[in-house]
Amino acid sequence: MDSPRRRRDHRDIGTMGEDALVRRVTRDLPTTAHVLTRAGEDDCAVVRRGRQLVLLKTDAMVADIHFTMETAAARVGWKALCRGLSDLASSGGGLTSEALLTLAMPPETPLAWVDGFYRGLRKAARQFHCAVVGGETTSMPRGAPIVISVALSGEVSAKRLTLRSGGHAGDVLCVTGVLGGSLRGWHLDFTPRIAEAQWLTQAAKPSAMMDVSDGLAKDLPRLADASGCDFALTPETLPRRRGCDTTAALTDGEDYELLIALSPRRFARAVATWPFSRVPLTCIGRLTPLGSGRPLPKGGWDHFAL
Amino acid sequence: MDSPRRRRDHRDIGTMGEDALVRRVTRDLPTTAHVLTRAGEDDCAVVRRGRQLVLLKTDAMVADIHFTMETAAARVGWKALCRGLSDLASSGGGLTSEALLTLAMPPETPLAWVDGFYRGLRKAARQFHCAVVGGETTSMPRGAPIVISVALSGEVSAKRLTLRSGGHAGDVLCVTGVLGGSLRGWHLDFTPRIAEAQWLTQAAKPSAMMDVSDGLAKDLPRLADASGCDFALTPETLPRRRGCDTTAALTDGEDYELLIALSPRRFARAVATWPFSRVPLTCIGRLTPLGSGRPLPKGGWDHFAL
Repeated sequence: MDSPRRRRDHRDIGTMGEDALVRRVTRDLPTTAHVLTRAGEDDCAVVRRGRQLVLLKTDAMVADIHFTMETAAARVGWKALCRGLSDLASSGGGLTSEALLTLAMPPETPLAWVDGFYRGLRKAARQFHCAVVGGETTSMPRGAPIVISVALSGEVSAKRLTLRSGGHAGDVLCVTGVLGGSLRGWHLDFTPRIAEAQWLTQAAKPSAMMDVSDGLAKDLPRLADASGCDFALTPETLPRRRGCDTTAALTDGEDYELLIALSPRRFARAVATWPFSRVPLTCIGRLTPLGSGRPLPKGGWDHFAL
Repeated sequence: MDSPRRRRDHRDIGTMGEDALVRRVTRDLPTTAHVLTRAGEDDCAVVRRGRQLVLLKTDAMVADIHFTMETAAARVGWKALCRGLSDLASSGGGLTSEALLTLAMPPETPLAWVDGFYRGLRKAARQFHCAVVGGETTSMPRGAPIVISVALSGEVSAKRLTLRSGGHAGDVLCVTGVLGGSLRGWHLDFTPRIAEAQWLTQAAKPSAMMDVSDGLAKDLPRLADASGCDFALTPETLPRRRGCDTTAALTDGEDYELLIALSPRRFARAVATWPFSRVPLTCIGRLTPLGSGRPLPKGGWDHFAL
């Protein structure tokens, strides 16, 4: 098992981009007949379990990278669960789910931090009907940063399952809520858009949906790629958080809003009957036929997409 | 959300035992009507998904604690998946499963290590029909140890589901394989006892089953406690790995063998028809009525149980 099958690569992972590393490690991963979609291809993996469909998703956070020890621990616990719930929501699920938690901590971690973390996690779990069925704590060497990993399993009905890949040229693109400026607080306190996604999958039947977590400039191309489309964005219509310009709305990230593609007729009906008065639903552009290009906002798309 | 509900505890987690910490954080965790058993109560959590039952389990490994960077990375990848598969097996499942992987690594991690880790993981996944449906890699600060977390979801039929809690006084206790000395290599290369557990749940209907991962001295009391029994052990019949004494067989841990309780009649039938010539099935004692005590092996039980 130990003999390398290919020439040994003497680089370390810090010298290659994260995308290249992910492509390298996810190739040839074993699959089974139960697997309809893998997590790398969409917000969640989709697995058939008897007659049921199940969404699976894991998400990790590391201290000093994704949060700091100055952040109130309860907000970290809330966020740790809600990030994955946002992915379940955007796939059409999230009404009920189960979470498995791994919490790796160095011995100097204050007990008060652990108590606070679990307080926030429990609050989110109760609010969104998520059962925390396993909570492993494991030791790290002194000085190591806290690592949090949350794995979620959730039901989704075949009728509501909505992938990134279902979009069609001509579909209206829209987003929930407002974009940008998330680091001012929303990224720790956001509400996963479960209710909105459930309403949409029932009343408006989106052709494609995903959550905006890396910023629209990165996530919209992913939805378009998966759907085999290009797109035209109308940057002046982007719903922006107060004080944010277009660049911030496109690139700040951690918005945890829904990006939706749906037919013009369905969009019109959705807007007319949209019941969430505090969460706007805003048209931001269109999916266009592949080959029609992705016209740049002022300042250049590549600059935004990084 | 940030205001503490109880008096702030100024200890850090290094000053309290792991068991006390786990008890503290797992109390009051939200649950739902779908959850039949939580992971803390058994090897796996058991969740109802429509008409299906699903096993959920997460398991973490940290460099310099659970493995060293001198260990061949492919063996670490093999073990990372097989530990959880051993838990699915001992609950009566593991025939097909899905894995979600979180791999948190510092930038100086050699790419060759990552390649090797995934090679071992893929080999185990193929051999045991496990689909790796999500593989997240995330950055750690320089100098931090690698953290691996694997979450598993697997089918189990209601007929085969076997918990720790089903044992009865009078049941024969037996184990598969041999115990002790795992650190000489078995702990990295072991075969999860999926085939044996499938045979047992089909042909012998154990009343209780679990995997021996922390050593029999810790795990047998857990099965007895869950079943509301005491037990009598016959230390002289313990199947030991070559060169191991009774203490080693009881306490070394990482055996990844099955501990089984079943009626004497079923045990007799199981032994008579046991088809695995390379894996012994050995009687090691009995479950006894609660109150009859847990007679100490020579040297004292508390010493073993630590």
